[in-house]
Amino acid sequence: MKKTKALNYIPGGILNASDYELLAPQFIPPDYFGYISGGSGVDKTLRLNRNAFEEYRIIPRVLCDLDQATTQIELLGQNLEHPLMLSPLAYQTLAHPEGEKATAAAAEATDTLMVASTLSSFSMEEIARRAGARKWFQLYLQPDFKDTLELIRRAKACGYRAIVLTVDAAVQLPSRTAINAGFNMPADLYPANLSRQTNDRASVSNNPSRSIFHAYAQNSINKESLKRVMEATDLPVLVKGVLHAEDAVALKQLGVSGIIVSNHGGRTLDGVPASLSMLTEIRQAVGSHFPLLFDSGIRSGQDAFKAIALGADAVLIGRLQVYALGVAGALGVAHMLKLLRQELELTMSVAGTSSIKDIQAVSLKKG
Amino acid sequence: MKKTKALNYIPGGILNASDYELLAPQFIPPDYFGYISGGSGVDKTLRLNRNAFEEYRIIPRVLCDLDQATTQIELLGQNLEHPLMLSPLAYQTLAHPEGEKATAAAAEATDTLMVASTLSSFSMEEIARRAGARKWFQLYLQPDFKDTLELIRRAKACGYRAIVLTVDAAVQLPSRTAINAGFNMPADLYPANLSRQTNDRASVSNNPSRSIFHAYAQNSINKESLKRVMEATDLPVLVKGVLHAEDAVALKQLGVSGIIVSNHGGRTLDGVPASLSMLTEIRQAVGSHFPLLFDSGIRSGQDAFKAIALGADAVLIGRLQVYALGVAGALGVAHMLKLLRQELELTMSVAGTSSIKDIQAVSLKKG
Amino acid sequence: MKKTKALNYIPGGILNASDYELLAPQFIPPDYFGYISGGSGVDKTLRLNRNAFEEYRIIPRVLCDLDQATTQIELLGQNLEHPLMLSPLAYQTLAHPEGEKATAAAAEATDTLMVASTLSSFSMEEIARRAGARKWFQLYLQPDFKDTLELIRRAKACGYRAIVLTVDAAVQLPSRTAINAGFNMPADLYPANLSRQTNDRASVSNNPSRSIFHAYAQNSINKESLKRVMEATDLPVLVKGVLHAEDAVALKQLGVSGIIVSNHGGRTLDGVPASLSMLTEIRQAVGSHFPLLFDSGIRSGQDAFKAIALGADAVLIGRLQVYALGVAGALGVAHMLKLLRQELELTMSVAGTSSIKDIQAVSLKKG
Amino acid sequence: MKKTKALNYIPGGILNASDYELLAPQFIPPDYFGYISGGSGVDKTLRLNRNAFEEYRIIPRVLCDLDQATTQIELLGQNLEHPLMLSPLAYQTLAHPEGEKATAAAAEATDTLMVASTLSSFSMEEIARRAGARKWFQLYLQPDFKDTLELIRRAKACGYRAIVLTVDAAVQLPSRTAINAGFNMPADLYPANLSRQTNDRASVSNNPSRSIFHAYAQNSINKESLKRVMEATDLPVLVKGVLHAEDAVALKQLGVSGIIVSNHGGRTLDGVPASLSMLTEIRQAVGSHFPLLFDSGIRSGQDAFKAIALGADAVLIGRLQVYALGVAGALGVAHMLKLLRQELELTMSVAGTSSIKDIQAVSLKKG
Repeated sequence: MKKTKALNYIPGGILNASDYELLAPQFIPPDYFGYISGGSGVDKTLRLNRNAFEEYRIIPRVLCDLDQATTQIELLGQNLEHPLMLSPLAYQTLAHPEGEKATAAAAEATDTLMVASTLSSFSMEEIARRAGARKWFQLYLQPDFKDTLELIRRAKACGYRAIVLTVDAAVQLPSRTAINAGFNMPADLYPANLSRQTNDRASVSNNPSRSIFHAYAQNSINKESLKRVMEATDLPVLVKGVLHAEDAVALKQLGVSGIIVSNHGGRTLDGVPASLSMLTEIRQAVGSHFPLLFDSGIRSGQDAFKAIALGADAVLIGRLQVYALGVAGALGVAHMLKLLRQELELTMSVAGTSSIKDIQAVSLKKG
Repeated sequence: MKKTKALNYIPGGILNASDYELLAPQFIPPDYFGYISGGSGVDKTLRLNRNAFEEYRIIPRVLCDLDQATTQIELLGQNLEHPLMLSPLAYQTLAHPEGEKATAAAAEATDTLMVASTLSSFSMEEIARRAGARKWFQLYLQPDFKDTLELIRRAKACGYRAIVLTVDAAVQLPSRTAINAGFNMPADLYPANLSRQTNDRASVSNNPSRSIFHAYAQNSINKESLKRVMEATDLPVLVKGVLHAEDAVALKQLGVSGIIVSNHGGRTLDGVPASLSMLTEIRQAVGSHFPLLFDSGIRSGQDAFKAIALGADAVLIGRLQVYALGVAGALGVAHMLKLLRQELELTMSVAGTSSIKDIQAVSLKKG
Repeated sequence: MKKTKALNYIPGGILNASDYELLAPQFIPPDYFGYISGGSGVDKTLRLNRNAFEEYRIIPRVLCDLDQATTQIELLGQNLEHPLMLSPLAYQTLAHPEGEKATAAAAEATDTLMVASTLSSFSMEEIARRAGARKWFQLYLQPDFKDTLELIRRAKACGYRAIVLTVDAAVQLPSRTAINAGFNMPADLYPANLSRQTNDRASVSNNPSRSIFHAYAQNSINKESLKRVMEATDLPVLVKGVLHAEDAVALKQLGVSGIIVSNHGGRTLDGVPASLSMLTEIRQAVGSHFPLLFDSGIRSGQDAFKAIALGADAVLIGRLQVYALGVAGALGVAHMLKLLRQELELTMSVAGTSSIKDIQAVSLKKG
Repeated sequence: MKKTKALNYIPGGILNASDYELLAPQFIPPDYFGYISGGSGVDKTLRLNRNAFEEYRIIPRVLCDLDQATTQIELLGQNLEHPLMLSPLAYQTLAHPEGEKATAAAAEATDTLMVASTLSSFSMEEIARRAGARKWFQLYLQPDFKDTLELIRRAKACGYRAIVLTVDAAVQLPSRTAINAGFNMPADLYPANLSRQTNDRASVSNNPSRSIFHAYAQNSINKESLKRVMEATDLPVLVKGVLHAEDAVALKQLGVSGIIVSNHGGRTLDGVPASLSMLTEIRQAVGSHFPLLFDSGIRSGQDAFKAIALGADAVLIGRLQVYALGVAGALGVAHMLKLLRQELELTMSVAGTSSIKDIQAVSLKKG
């Protein structure tokens, strides 16, 4: 592992949460930054994710009464101060030696719900010690289902309040950005939760001796395995990585507790649609009361507002958390989250909305 | 305050009013120019404001009879020679030492209605002395309503014929363009009308110790405060800063005398829609006889024609007035206004329209 | 007048008619080229004219029978070998010392109908001597109608077969391209047809002492003057410079013999729509049997095909004729016209169309 | 003929089939590369072909059962392992001395159907010896129909299983890209199948002494000649080069065995629509059971998926095969085809499709 150069203070001149994206390359080694920032292929979907937000405009309102305004929501029985959550991001020590421990501390300091990744640099128990009550565990299915069960058991034992099952990672395709930056996974980096067992999910496209279909089937999640996960725990199970409305309806019917619309931050097949472009259709398909979260592309409070207006109950912050982590550790993440929340509140004010429900009733202007 | 380098003559080679925008950087100090020219954030809305005009085309007409052609209009009981007005722009001494006094003189010389700003470098009384009968006063609500009442009283006393209440300035967000240009508000610049009382409207997003919602509510205008303003004066009260048709209807029902569709020249939340893109919808909502003005983005007589064709009764000229002011003082502003009017007349001629009403009956071509 | 550097042979490497546009700057003095190539203002309409052609696609056909294919048309009682005509372009000695005399010879050599301009460098009689039977005369109304009558009489006397009355030139606005190239009208250049009487059409926007409306009314053509022209001659009278369908209908009702859809090659108000974008609507308005010609933007036989498919009976070639003239005089113009005709025939072949009428029945693909 | 510099091994760093396009200029002489890569004119249609794929998005599916997934298809009675075929490309020795012999070997090694060109550098018999059972013969009509009959007879004799009659090559227009690269057809390159008889198809636009219509009629294929081809053989006859739905219907009615939607890789009239943009309309016109293939623009398995989803039963790979051939001969072509197939399988997996029929039932997302 290379050394990173994070500050132990918040650098001057930061106006917006998104400024951490601009600063991060000064702090994170270029190859690591290439791996973190790149999407799959030539970053088409990565760009689509960002551009999708620019297709919508928020129309300001005037003479509004914001005396009772709040960002609070209730989600799966938990009261949250705001709808900004931390996405499960793997191997955060690439950005900062404190990795997910720092992220967890920042989440706790800012009343932010964190989703810890199966592929974290620190074990879920270590992370849980820094995090507060607002924490969920992201689950990758393990080759041996007993290992999957053990992960679920441990997550429950150390206080995670929901399981987020990722279903769109049967294949992770090479990223030109990462390759061009010379990235190789550091030899001393491995998923702490999995005690050095090899994670071969990424190998699908590189192993010519196996059929792609066979490899895919091995890695992907089918209805059976989903049911087994749901039966194995009394925690709510959410599914992350849904882009098609019919899949959302099927999952709802299977009894999942919520869905996260996501294209894995543009890291699956390059060229799939922007997450945001599928959101409204999915919300219409699952109805207004089903927990629906949004992931992929959020860089500002205004983005969060737009995703909520288009159908999300809450949004997950992906790359921005590791950018802030790389710049200034826990302090950076906490600062970034504070700015993001202020941006959301400001956008709500300008739009004359007093609650997250109010945002969901807003019609954005196209174009 | 830095010195500006305005000429005392009209420079050669100016063909169009918009040429003053190109020349201004040679005359106004770069940091001041950054503050004047920049929008909020990264200037998204600023660009949208300009691009919106390019979405429409004026179809020329032939064999028209223009013998009785005129640009005259009647607005709130005042007869105006033309529908081009000067927008309220703060602190015009940043562009020229004579500031609003020069602007007022130019307005008077060209039969142009001027809207003086609460935040003018010179007092409204000084400005009024240079201006003719065509002058309105732009009002920012003051923390203490007594101060607001005093501003209204003074405006009436020195001959302003209408009050323009700005409602979209509860928050003014930092401008990257201004920051990158190194702009700081000069210590010796303060609103002459307000006798050095601090104006803290701009602080919302920078003060982390207050809730955004609370700060916003403090600075924004609600129906109560609007009603108090209307009750405090027998002058017509127009509201400036409306972008949503429902707000326009609500304001009309509250009894305001007119509405100015505006996004504050792209200086509020970055990313809100172009003013022009909301105009037609708002005109349809308030009906054809309600006084509706347009602001944000006008750079030519052809732009003015388009805004009128899309629903405006008159248009306000913003940045262009300070650019011309910076280039050649009162002379520059007068020249710019003359060119703008000629451009409007020429466009009316080509379009075969004999009056402002005729323009309003024109269908622009999209695309 | 500066010397031009035209070749007396056709340069190698020319594949398409449009190559003359690429070569012309090597032969025509830069300031003259700026004047010829520029549109008004900042060339918005000039670009729109060109881009409009790219919005349409011709779908190839196969297994077609082209044995009887022809480009011949009948227009106002004249049989023409092809629908490609030369637009009236002023002062062609700017491009070549032989000017319109060379153009006329090239038109005759290629069976091309030529429209001679009122503002030609050589008199209409001199031009007529080089041209064949296929020649029309373009008329600008003169301040004194007697002078107009005299022009019409002379045109008839020397064999022009139709009068093309230009109605969109009441104002010609300054061109940035021409100004930036340093263009000034050479002192020794004047309209040979008009015996040194000053032509003040271009002065509208530069004379601040007159009202724009008044100046425009003086220069523009109204229904009365059109009727007087029609009554003064038994030649067919076409009107050039129409972009609005209602104007086309009105002109048809007034009894004109044909209409030329044109925006004067982007030389009137900058920002008016592309000629091509108005064509179909105008054709629909005047019906399928009324003579309708197209001008502004043609650079290839494929362009000509598209204009015809969108409603034109024939098309006028503007700048390309003076570009070819500047490169290689009469030879260049003739070569350019031959290439253009070959391109048209090739496009007709690929599209499976055997006649100009066939083209008019084709549906172009949008986008 | 210039020497090419092909490797006899697969170069490192190739992730996708399309990487061969990026590498090819290092191996193929620049003038040859210009000829191969260029379209006609200024490559408008070439770009349209590529851009058309970017207008569609594949929406990922989750929880799918891919146990029985296969790329197999049946086409004209032949069972194919996958729907990726090799387009007929002329003169492949420009890219590699082994030319079509290497391509044929690679096709056989990867279970790929190959279409050999009339204009191949090696005779169809030589090619047939390297190819397996999956081979078709592309036919250009010869000036003397006896020669055409002889080609058909030989094709049948050496095992080609279908005739692909190309109908869009009556004219091949000059390519600026080829000309700018200095390309001239090497003197020692001639179509081996035709024993040095001159092929004058390309001369249409360069011979000013003949009428374009006449030349076109000579070179093009009419219904009579198509019928004579069909009557001359019991092999299935497909027609390549169709872009218009009405032509497709007419061809189906004439009894052809299949149609290949193609614009000859952008090598006919520059500016015709993208092949992909016409595909769905043509499929709708011919019905779901008629063999319809797609050609022009495929660079990846995802492209192939999109073409199939829009209506194709199989797709033809054009330039990519000679790029791979130029880089590493038969090995390169085989590797490219393997990657392409893996990309297709991966895309099918992500899209939750188990068969080519499944793909055809997918709705792509526009934009």
